[in-house]
Amino acid sequence: MWRDLLPVGRNAATGGYRRHAWTPADADCRAWFEREARDRGLWYEADRNGNQWAWLGDPADGNAVVTGSHLDSVPDGGAYDGPLGVVSAFAAVDALRRRGAVAGRPLAVVNFTEEEGARFGVACLGSRLMTGVADPAAARALTDSGGVTLAEAMERAGHDPSALGRDDERLARVGVFVELHVEQGRRLAGTPHPVGVGSAIWPHGRWRLDFPGVADHAGTTLMEDRRDPMPGYAATVLAARESATRMGGLATFGRLRVAPNGTNAIASLVTAWLDCRAPDADTLEDLVAGIAAVAEAAGAEITAESGTPLVTFDRPLRVRLARILGGAPPLPTGAGHDAGVLASAVPTAMLFVRNPTGVSHSPHEHAEEADCLAGVSALTRVLTDLLADDPSEPAQCEPGPPGGS
Amino acid sequence: MWRDLLPVGRNAATGGYRRHAWTPADADCRAWFEREARDRGLWYEADRNGNQWAWLGDPADGNAVVTGSHLDSVPDGGAYDGPLGVVSAFAAVDALRRRGAVAGRPLAVVNFTEEEGARFGVACLGSRLMTGVADPAAARALTDSGGVTLAEAMERAGHDPSALGRDDERLARVGVFVELHVEQGRRLAGTPHPVGVGSAIWPHGRWRLDFPGVADHAGTTLMEDRRDPMPGYAATVLAARESATRMGGLATFGRLRVAPNGTNAIASLVTAWLDCRAPDADTLEDLVAGIAAVAEAAGAEITAESGTPLVTFDRPLRVRLARILGGAPPLPTGAGHDAGVLASAVPTAMLFVRNPTGVSHSPHEHAEEADCLAGVSALTRVLTDLLADDPSEPAQCEPGPPGGS
Repeated sequence: MWRDLLPVGRNAATGGYRRHAWTPADADCRAWFEREARDRGLWYEADRNGNQWAWLGDPADGNAVVTGSHLDSVPDGGAYDGPLGVVSAFAAVDALRRRGAVAGRPLAVVNFTEEEGARFGVACLGSRLMTGVADPAAARALTDSGGVTLAEAMERAGHDPSALGRDDERLARVGVFVELHVEQGRRLAGTPHPVGVGSAIWPHGRWRLDFPGVADHAGTTLMEDRRDPMPGYAATVLAARESATRMGGLATFGRLRVAPNGTNAIASLVTAWLDCRAPDADTLEDLVAGIAAVAEAAGAEITAESGTPLVTFDRPLRVRLARILGGAPPLPTGAGHDAGVLASAVPTAMLFVRNPTGVSHSPHEHAEEADCLAGVSALTRVLTDLLADDPSEPAQCEPGPPGGS
Repeated sequence: MWRDLLPVGRNAATGGYRRHAWTPADADCRAWFEREARDRGLWYEADRNGNQWAWLGDPADGNAVVTGSHLDSVPDGGAYDGPLGVVSAFAAVDALRRRGAVAGRPLAVVNFTEEEGARFGVACLGSRLMTGVADPAAARALTDSGGVTLAEAMERAGHDPSALGRDDERLARVGVFVELHVEQGRRLAGTPHPVGVGSAIWPHGRWRLDFPGVADHAGTTLMEDRRDPMPGYAATVLAARESATRMGGLATFGRLRVAPNGTNAIASLVTAWLDCRAPDADTLEDLVAGIAAVAEAAGAEITAESGTPLVTFDRPLRVRLARILGGAPPLPTGAGHDAGVLASAVPTAMLFVRNPTGVSHSPHEHAEEADCLAGVSALTRVLTDLLADDPSEPAQCEPGPPGGS
């Protein structure tokens, strides 16, 4: 199963994955998911927002146990981020059946679309649309770097974009959601634990910074006469690094657009994207304000493109999972996940599989095979326990904090 | 004539020109040149390196007076940089004929190809190939941003790339070369002089700086664990600005490539191009060494992509032109020109037409109509004087410094 998926969307030059939503590589991933579902005799459906579901039992019974993740990738991403959660979910279904442990409660494996936001800029788009956090009309108008809208991309991939939006019917089926994911840090490395339980997702957001300049000839315009936006951008990068280090947050400039981008032309515009995260909302606000002050002093305009408040995963569910897994440690993370979006609507939990280097969003991302198998085993035990709940009663879990936080 | 050329290759959104070598916009410019030549009954030819010539008199007589410039542009360049010299050359031919001032010495208007290096990265490619400064095999293998080689681009445009290279036969025809160009600075602004005489071209070069990093997740990798190349690039930008200002040189980072260029991915590689210029070779060397030290401390690899030593235009010719023009002031410049390349082979001079803002390589580049007409008048007087030399004797001018300098 893992072997079939490995070559899909892999760039031969970098060894990284380029599985961007509604591209041919994504279609191959989606076909793989459908095949895995049908080969197991699971009932397959793609929902209005393009998320894929594989059902064991009748969805109409409600209070389902749902597990899964995503198959799309960042540019030149690794093999584990996303796919490990989907592959482990199918493997757990196989293990449950071998044990005959499947109860009356329905079970589903899910693949959420455009989790990385690598093509259309909004992360967790499939889960945000389903839960009504993202506006469908705004989503349809999102464009990729080539100017193709999400609506056009979906149509070209044979999906109807007019049905995008909040999907209360499907959401009502979900009793609990558990996402397994490769760890994107090194908190488990060096501990005896191959698997941890997600505790919280740091508040985070994306900001676009436009540094305006005046295009001019690099060989004739005196240094004091130029309005070059590059030094202002550079000062902002250094301020971001210093502030984030000092305040215990994270600040990254990883994406940049320079116009006209000629060697002998002073730039007329530098557009930079800031990704910023912190353990709590106040620290995040202070961190971004400090960086913004340096950018604004250089004449930049700053636009908030997306923001996600602190997510604290359902506490009773977390306690229960840690107990099932024999004291698996709690792990906060700075990374957004579909589980963070679902947490606003249903009791939600995450399992993290140890990453020896901590590297992610890179071809060098890795997890040991033994730890991946330990992840499948942990997920199987968790699902077994959850499926054993009385199907007529909803799980005894508090919902997550209100408003998507 | 100017009106016909104005709309060619102009981007409606920016108002800037995108006339890159061997593109459809360039083909339109070339067709314009050929039409202007034929309409005047001038003998037209495109040489082996793609440069265009319009001849009045017999080229075989040798010791020709040649004037002209280029029609290609930087990305979103202005209307004057290049075309003003070609249009003024044709206008001067018309003025000479009206006066009946054309002597026995042949006269040519020339359009050099790929002067800006905007598509294939090497500036003054047409004149460098003709004078043997550029290697034809290396030139054929140059690629544009889409991976198209110069050889392929020339073939698609209907030109044979196999004949590229040093063209001694054509070079031997040229007795003197005068290039008129819009000023790319503000030295004439505020003076009573609409036209100046070029004295020198600062030594200059282009360097590629590769800052390596390790791609990783922007939301999970602690600041102290990251190998992010962006802060090292930023420190280099600020050092370049500080050093160039202090040393009286010019240093520009106007072109950048970031991999993988994702908002939530730490960059694995930042490639930046440095354009650096100074009044003399020692200052340039010191300036680049200082910037390189900062970049290398951040782990960057530095590659010199091109370098052009100091060009001092032929002194007797400069003195003669200043006298003809009633004391036009001498102007050094930081910008490379085909005249700088030709100066290694034949006596060469430049005329600059006043630019009120100094802005160039930008849609905002401008020259007043009166100053453009003064430029045509100055060029006409210069050509008249040069054509009056005894055709059997080469011009009494020292050649430029050896080795393309």
